Amino acid sequence: MKEAFGRLDSSSLRIAIVVSRFNEMVTTRLLHGALDVLKRTGCRDEAIDVVHVPGSFEIPLAARVLAQKNEYQALVCLGAVIKGETDHDRHLGSTVTDAIGRIGLEFGIPIGYGLVTVDTAEQALDRAGLKQGNKGADAALAAIEMVTLLKGL
Amino acid sequence: MKEAFGRLDSSSLRIAIVVSRFNEMVTTRLLHGALDVLKRTGCRDEAIDVVHVPGSFEIPLAARVLAQKNEYQALVCLGAVIKGETDHDRHLGSTVTDAIGRIGLEFGIPIGYGLVTVDTAEQALDRAGLKQGNKGADAALAAIEMVTLLKGL
Amino acid sequence: MKEAFGRLDSSSLRIAIVVSRFNEMVTTRLLHGALDVLKRTGCRDEAIDVVHVPGSFEIPLAARVLAQKNEYQALVCLGAVIKGETDHDRHLGSTVTDAIGRIGLEFGIPIGYGLVTVDTAEQALDRAGLKQGNKGADAALAAIEMVTLLKGL
Amino acid sequence: MKEAFGRLDSSSLRIAIVVSRFNEMVTTRLLHGALDVLKRTGCRDEAIDVVHVPGSFEIPLAARVLAQKNEYQALVCLGAVIKGETDHDRHLGSTVTDAIGRIGLEFGIPIGYGLVTVDTAEQALDRAGLKQGNKGADAALAAIEMVTLLKGL
Amino acid sequence: MKEAFGRLDSSSLRIAIVVSRFNEMVTTRLLHGALDVLKRTGCRDEAIDVVHVPGSFEIPLAARVLAQKNEYQALVCLGAVIKGETDHDRHLGSTVTDAIGRIGLEFGIPIGYGLVTVDTAEQALDRAGLKQGNKGADAALAAIEMVTLLKGL
Repeated sequence: MKEAFGRLDSSSLRIAIVVSRFNEMVTTRLLHGALDVLKRTGCRDEAIDVVHVPGSFEIPLAARVLAQKNEYQALVCLGAVIKGETDHDRHLGSTVTDAIGRIGLEFGIPIGYGLVTVDTAEQALDRAGLKQGNKGADAALAAIEMVTLLKGL
Repeated sequence: MKEAFGRLDSSSLRIAIVVSRFNEMVTTRLLHGALDVLKRTGCRDEAIDVVHVPGSFEIPLAARVLAQKNEYQALVCLGAVIKGETDHDRHLGSTVTDAIGRIGLEFGIPIGYGLVTVDTAEQALDRAGLKQGNKGADAALAAIEMVTLLKGL
Repeated sequence: MKEAFGRLDSSSLRIAIVVSRFNEMVTTRLLHGALDVLKRTGCRDEAIDVVHVPGSFEIPLAARVLAQKNEYQALVCLGAVIKGETDHDRHLGSTVTDAIGRIGLEFGIPIGYGLVTVDTAEQALDRAGLKQGNKGADAALAAIEMVTLLKGL
Repeated sequence: MKEAFGRLDSSSLRIAIVVSRFNEMVTTRLLHGALDVLKRTGCRDEAIDVVHVPGSFEIPLAARVLAQKNEYQALVCLGAVIKGETDHDRHLGSTVTDAIGRIGLEFGIPIGYGLVTVDTAEQALDRAGLKQGNKGADAALAAIEMVTLLKGL
Repeated sequence: MKEAFGRLDSSSLRIAIVVSRFNEMVTTRLLHGALDVLKRTGCRDEAIDVVHVPGSFEIPLAARVLAQKNEYQALVCLGAVIKGETDHDRHLGSTVTDAIGRIGLEFGIPIGYGLVTVDTAEQALDRAGLKQGNKGADAALAAIEMVTLLKGL
């Protein structure tokens, strides 16, 4: 039996982060979490591109354009969908999650999925570093690990 | 680290707005919000095309035909799905949101997503300029910002 | 600013209606509503084809075969999904709605969406001409309007 | 106005049934219902192939392989998803329903949809011949009717 | 009437398992269940590759890369999505389930679906060998059975 693992080393990677500005208090923390991970895994500062989009709906299009450039070994997508009074967030969260997944499969590129979809702003902050870890950091770690894993298959 | 931002300048853009007539009291306000943003960001009046469709279900087909023409730098889609007593709106909102997202990815064109999917007419009006901003204006801003952002990548 | 509208004139159109027999009491009324609209907008009787399918699940396949024939300027799809005790209707309604939307985009043909997805038979009848208008008539109107609208773009 | 109907005659058809073993007490009854319909509509015994798959998730792959063989005029898919305590069944039911629908559209082949998605085993049995008809029989009838209908279009 | 069944013999198969580390207490048991099935159905130890991914979102990309290698007769995907306080798990579970299904159809390869999507950690453990069987073992069994079944069609 052969077991394959990825490694948490981004020292030779070029990585783009797409982050949405909507619910900025949350997404800024997600971005800090992701950048922190990149630095601690060895990513050179000049190897990181951060692309700011207005909201979660815009994340997939930016991600797809970046994937097509074929210059990055991994992408990280960060956003926050906070459920208000309506179903709106459900459609948005579902469509964006699905689209990010399909872009990764289409281009064969690891995309760290850091979309926080929650019911309250408090839950969003909890997931952005206050209590329950930082989904931005998790997403960056996942993307980095997948790059070396896939290379080794 | 390089950071990319879009700019809110539509002075050199040609933009088409698809707006549905169903729940017209809401969608008219969304349209006004979008047009107001276009003007305030410098879009010339003759560079704006407004396409009126009957309901939300018809938005994606019109958007796709417009995207295929390759004459517009961005589209804006405006509609209102108000949940009545049934699940009907859920299917509609989900299908339309998904389709708009996929058209944007297929043609690589920014599409401002201004579909208000709510439980009550009051919530719809709140999101069309009464209390909680104007989703039509938001959608237009997002589309404009994405055009310059994507050009710069 | 240029504004584009469709017209409610079906006098020169060839139109196919796909209607499901399941919950026939409802779908017959939807069909009458659609046919009534076609006649009142000038459609010649011999320009209308009505295709009867067993249930809602069969609507997309018939619609796709009709779209492929390239003989119709528009389609109208009529069916009724009434929620019983289970989630079955949710999957059905979602899959059929999505499929109809995608067929319209794939062939660039307007498809009037007249699928009534409701919780009770009473709600279905309400939407089939008793109280809340007739979704079959609405679907036919939307399809007709879209034909002239798209031609003018 | 021309009206198109299908006929319930399977005497010249070759038909494959995909049936899952999971919740076998239900799916066996669905299979009996489907076979009963095939025989009563004239299908020759040697023209029927029954393919047993482990669970509902495996239905689409078997159906697609059968559709690709281009030897059958119609398929019938039978399975039972019973909601336990979790959301698991929702994802499963949604993915399988969608996949069956897409395979039918991709190959232009009628696929009788006999997936029972319910909350309790009792509801499943009700829909497998106890009280509320037999969804397996319904699925077979729908598939047969669609074959002649589509040929006539 | 011809009936086709698969066999539970993996002695001549090469099989890859994709397993996520998130909720490791659950996924480790799923992996043990799957490996146990592979051994008891005759799979040689050196014919099994185990690929560890960070979370459920990463499963489809690894599965697709493995399917593309065309070296395995079947894949098994194992993960655990435990619903916390938010809708996040619903989007994740839905997107991942759908993607696994589509990859199987795209490459015509059986993929054992062992994604546990539950409300509580307790339910997850129940489905990972404590009370309600082991979904990892079920997934492996389903994949093995499908390989011989499809070959015989």
